[in-house]
Amino acid sequence: MFTKDGGPQRSDFADVRATNLAVVLRHLRSNAPCSRADIAGTTGLNKATVSSLVTDLIERRLVREVGMTENRIGRPAMMLVLDGSPYAAIGLEVNSDYLTAVALDLSGERLLSWRRSFTGASTAPGPAIASLAALAKRAIAKMAHEQRRVLGLTVGVPGLVDPDGVVELAPHLGWHRVDLRKSLLSALQEPAYPVLVENDANLAVLAEQRFGGQGGAANLVYLSGGAGIGAGIICDGRLLRGGRGFAGEFGHLPIDDTGPPCACGRRGCVESLAGLGAVIRRALPEAVVSPTEFGPHVDEIHRLAKAGDPHVLAALATTGRYLGHGISMLTNLINPEFVALGGYFTVLAPWLIPEASQELVARSVAGAGGGTQIIVSALDASAAAAGGAAQALDAIDAGALPTL
Amino acid sequence: MFTKDGGPQRSDFADVRATNLAVVLRHLRSNAPCSRADIAGTTGLNKATVSSLVTDLIERRLVREVGMTENRIGRPAMMLVLDGSPYAAIGLEVNSDYLTAVALDLSGERLLSWRRSFTGASTAPGPAIASLAALAKRAIAKMAHEQRRVLGLTVGVPGLVDPDGVVELAPHLGWHRVDLRKSLLSALQEPAYPVLVENDANLAVLAEQRFGGQGGAANLVYLSGGAGIGAGIICDGRLLRGGRGFAGEFGHLPIDDTGPPCACGRRGCVESLAGLGAVIRRALPEAVVSPTEFGPHVDEIHRLAKAGDPHVLAALATTGRYLGHGISMLTNLINPEFVALGGYFTVLAPWLIPEASQELVARSVAGAGGGTQIIVSALDASAAAAGGAAQALDAIDAGALPTL
Repeated sequence: MFTKDGGPQRSDFADVRATNLAVVLRHLRSNAPCSRADIAGTTGLNKATVSSLVTDLIERRLVREVGMTENRIGRPAMMLVLDGSPYAAIGLEVNSDYLTAVALDLSGERLLSWRRSFTGASTAPGPAIASLAALAKRAIAKMAHEQRRVLGLTVGVPGLVDPDGVVELAPHLGWHRVDLRKSLLSALQEPAYPVLVENDANLAVLAEQRFGGQGGAANLVYLSGGAGIGAGIICDGRLLRGGRGFAGEFGHLPIDDTGPPCACGRRGCVESLAGLGAVIRRALPEAVVSPTEFGPHVDEIHRLAKAGDPHVLAALATTGRYLGHGISMLTNLINPEFVALGGYFTVLAPWLIPEASQELVARSVAGAGGGTQIIVSALDASAAAAGGAAQALDAIDAGALPTL
Repeated sequence: MFTKDGGPQRSDFADVRATNLAVVLRHLRSNAPCSRADIAGTTGLNKATVSSLVTDLIERRLVREVGMTENRIGRPAMMLVLDGSPYAAIGLEVNSDYLTAVALDLSGERLLSWRRSFTGASTAPGPAIASLAALAKRAIAKMAHEQRRVLGLTVGVPGLVDPDGVVELAPHLGWHRVDLRKSLLSALQEPAYPVLVENDANLAVLAEQRFGGQGGAANLVYLSGGAGIGAGIICDGRLLRGGRGFAGEFGHLPIDDTGPPCACGRRGCVESLAGLGAVIRRALPEAVVSPTEFGPHVDEIHRLAKAGDPHVLAALATTGRYLGHGISMLTNLINPEFVALGGYFTVLAPWLIPEASQELVARSVAGAGGGTQIIVSALDASAAAAGGAAQALDAIDAGALPTL
């Protein structure tokens, strides 16, 4: 770790400083208001280091001073709290039948939440990216109008995304090797903040972890219920991406090699049997399924299920069993505490979860389904966009401060 | 995080101290010999803190002073290096046909490596634990004779192990709810060091990460090739255990619901088609398979494969395809960089890997098998025991020092 002349490498210093900044931010989040001396006393960092870190945080308006203490022993001290009001983080999602945008402030409050109908499945990548960029620009303009600085913008895509932001494959958008990050950077005129592209379910599970009902569960999976079924996986508190970033392809676990054809070119994958297209065809065999307008069909299925329609109930039970079959593989391999059904599944969950849970228990080798609970996601269709915005907040929490 | 009287909680201090100890140990591992001032300068810890941490480490003989520098500017400084010679960590494994024991010193050098034939599949839990405890005692006695203090002892078991060390289920040992940790603690007369029980594949992958050929790959799976096939999974550098510790049940992923019966009570699981019993029955249909003596059969299969026996080659190709089918589920869900075939698979790997790799590519949704490479484990049958010993070393590296 030392360079030839014996001095420590710069990256060492940068890493240590980021770690220490994160320590101070986390300390303030749990303990504010508190003084510089309090921080030094508890963290073991020396006072000069704490002062320097706090100066950085104040300069960036991530922390502010709120006045002197009075009711304590010893010299009065200047107390600190978290700030962050001049910032915003933006997340977007492109999917087969909608676009969404969410902006959050540093505390996670929503500054905007938009949804647009979108014919993703029948739009070529060029015009699709143009629509997405237009939505991004409107969100950025709104933040500028509110005098907030954008910290980062992340787009969720239902498919395989490599670490450079190239969409390798998104079957339900018809995308193959689309360099979305590069196109967006160009459309947004190379902004100074990070622009990232990520699998939609990965972003959604970050949102579920931060904003969902499971209080920061360390082992959590989010299943995006759309035309495809992606899994966002959090293990031991951290997003699981895998070696090339292609983890979470739950929808393409094989259930039945003789099953219906799948968008990936194989047969009988989970999503060919339990994805939204399959659900609609099973529940509403007369319906003409448009891949860009699932909403009305889902509403109709929901209405009929509530009315006790036996055919629809049987169709949802069958779907639940296929989901449970897939979830049993998750349980056998990664043993999550919670599997949250998201997207369109949230509406249909009351009729999916009982059969899915039964199948899970029957098929997982650990007793009682390995303790895995199938639950309804607490988030709506903006989950991935909210997670995209949350990603920029996570970077700050990890000590990657915005540049001055 | 503050107590009522305004003082920080003790756990805060303990956590920070462990983190800082780990920082100093890691710094010394990469940079030794170096001085206290070097450590303070690079880590941002203040000099008094570094001095106090180093005193702790020297008292425990984890670090020692090696003399003053001469050839540098400024005052000469006392240089420090890692020590640890008075310590040992012990790992054991119990499996259906053998017991193993390994002891390591702090640098990871092997102090002993034993293997015993063992009729695990036909021995009741009580006598099996007695045999295991006898082996443990011999290893402990040998370490005492060498005047090494034991830092920890970890036992690997081919089955589901809960966080308290209870073996929930180990089908190939015939164990169900066996409180192995409690029995061992009692047999070893409640030693002062940690005694842990862990899934065998989880330990083996820790050994593969530390001692294998993939140079600390961050996304790595080890498949234990025995009667059962467990997966030890490392994601993003860390062992994946799951919510209840039941992750890695690769052998019970479903391949064919109409397949042969599996030890778990279901049909057509991966291990019922690709586990060692299935391999032997497929390759040597005339053989009478003893579940407690696989070695001679594996030797015979190896001999015939090398001789080009067409039936044996076809049997291994079929087995490879089933393995590849299972590994494609790993790739779709967690996208590892490497899947290492361990245990008896290491001998047969040259005839398993080509077909397995082809099946993996055909079945994984990401192109080129998501980049997952199927490789031969660099470790022998002592992998899990070596991993068990390594676990105690990891605890030291994380700052959990031995008590004085």
